Amino acid sequence: MQINAITIVGGGLIGASWAALFLAHGARVTVQDVAQDFEARVTKEVGRAWPDLVALGMAHGDAPLDRLRFASDTAQACAGADFIQECGPDRINVKRDLIAQIEAGAKPDAVIASSTSSLLASDIQNGAAHPERIVVAHPFNPPHLIPLVELVPGRQTGAQAMAVARTFYAGIGREVVELKRDEVGHVANRLSSALFREAVHIVAEGIASAEDVDRAVMHGPGLRWALMGPYLTYHLGGGAGGFRHYIEHLGPTQAARWAELGDPKLDPETVGKLIAGVDDLVAGLGDTDPAARRDAGLIGLLELKRRIDGDQS
Amino acid sequence: MQINAITIVGGGLIGASWAALFLAHGARVTVQDVAQDFEARVTKEVGRAWPDLVALGMAHGDAPLDRLRFASDTAQACAGADFIQECGPDRINVKRDLIAQIEAGAKPDAVIASSTSSLLASDIQNGAAHPERIVVAHPFNPPHLIPLVELVPGRQTGAQAMAVARTFYAGIGREVVELKRDEVGHVANRLSSALFREAVHIVAEGIASAEDVDRAVMHGPGLRWALMGPYLTYHLGGGAGGFRHYIEHLGPTQAARWAELGDPKLDPETVGKLIAGVDDLVAGLGDTDPAARRDAGLIGLLELKRRIDGDQS
Repeated sequence: MQINAITIVGGGLIGASWAALFLAHGARVTVQDVAQDFEARVTKEVGRAWPDLVALGMAHGDAPLDRLRFASDTAQACAGADFIQECGPDRINVKRDLIAQIEAGAKPDAVIASSTSSLLASDIQNGAAHPERIVVAHPFNPPHLIPLVELVPGRQTGAQAMAVARTFYAGIGREVVELKRDEVGHVANRLSSALFREAVHIVAEGIASAEDVDRAVMHGPGLRWALMGPYLTYHLGGGAGGFRHYIEHLGPTQAARWAELGDPKLDPETVGKLIAGVDDLVAGLGDTDPAARRDAGLIGLLELKRRIDGDQS
Repeated sequence: MQINAITIVGGGLIGASWAALFLAHGARVTVQDVAQDFEARVTKEVGRAWPDLVALGMAHGDAPLDRLRFASDTAQACAGADFIQECGPDRINVKRDLIAQIEAGAKPDAVIASSTSSLLASDIQNGAAHPERIVVAHPFNPPHLIPLVELVPGRQTGAQAMAVARTFYAGIGREVVELKRDEVGHVANRLSSALFREAVHIVAEGIASAEDVDRAVMHGPGLRWALMGPYLTYHLGGGAGGFRHYIEHLGPTQAARWAELGDPKLDPETVGKLIAGVDDLVAGLGDTDPAARRDAGLIGLLELKRRIDGDQS
């Protein structure tokens, strides 16, 4: 299936970043929204993202704004689309309402991919006319830079829609991780939440400051996590015996640590401590623009990984 | 306090990597061990680490093996040391025995820093002649590349020893994170364990494969974690309202995810699934040497961060 025309429903930051990525790969893109001035905001965000895509060799010249259209009516916006990326608010009633509007205009076989980070594909597709073509395709912010797309089927999703979505995202340079079934938080946000829960415990209990928790991550295990996940990390930690040696010999140490991990509550006192800690952290940044630093860092990191991994990554 | 002579007790991989780092900063280094041929192994590991240190601008020319000595007797090895880095096995009785041997030879004010990843400073210093000069200084593997050193006081540790250790590690380019008190796993391994527990849950429950868990980390949130920790990440996720906006509006979503996180057991069935999953992952690596790739990646990543952060990092 050839994907030439893509409609993005919801023109916020995620929608605009998707738009830049899809334009860079030659698609005609329609962005639908009803917010005031969203056309100008999306155009500006695409213009900001474009030099990043050029730096990564994924785009050339100026942003092809002649292939970018806008619409306010959802059904009309979806009428000619081969693929629909839904980026609305993460509330189930809003999502179902959006799906109904999309299906009122879309071709019956156009895949509808939801960018949701917190809802389940099975819940979103519930009540749809063609639930079999609805998937979750969850990106990380900003989607035009971070390669991961988590592709998740709902209970009613068909194999055909999964195959089309898999081929589409892989074709635009995304690293597709396919879940066997939908679970709250997919994979990456479950892992992020597990890490954050312990980060909250450490600050709430006064073991270390929020700033030092962040420094421990970015000068320590975070460096490795940019290059490999926990399984390969522990495989290397097991020496010649690999992961089997690690888990058989140090598994009990891990399990002992698990028993010591915290179970914090986000009560007002804890939230106050966290906010004060992050205020200190932000004060320490000085004149640095952390979002610009992040994006420069991400571009450099993607170039680095391409260099060490050759053409595979 | 001038630190010219350093003794490393324990000549395994961690000890050898510390030795290369200390040599690069001009120290005279004595490595103590009793294992057969450990002198040859440490010399080889220092030789392997040296080009990494040269690439990072932390060393020049050939490894200064004339400043590297070996010893088998612990007390004798520590007699002339200004600073002692203990890298023995992580078992409390072995550690206490090593501390007694170190103290039998060491100057009374030489700081003794334990590299332990799983023991508490308070337990290690218990029964020592001079417990006030014993600290935990936990590196990440390999210590000559990963900048993080977690500096942890035991209940009996003195402010003077903490100050000496802090100045020493900062002076050799380490990013020192100081804990307010000792806790199992310090900070970074608590965070790593929290992430790994959920990674085990995801594979044990069949939500995704071990390979896909690793891919989700290294192509997704792991890219950001090399550049910033969870607190700054969520601060940016809060937009103009920052972390306060994030936690006040999306805190409930986080708490809901925490309630869904797994509590896996490392029973034989789960361990078998994990080993099979990592076998698949390793089979997919083909001819790549993952440790060499990791070290090349870490060097590139440290260079990148120096570039985007100027002289601060």
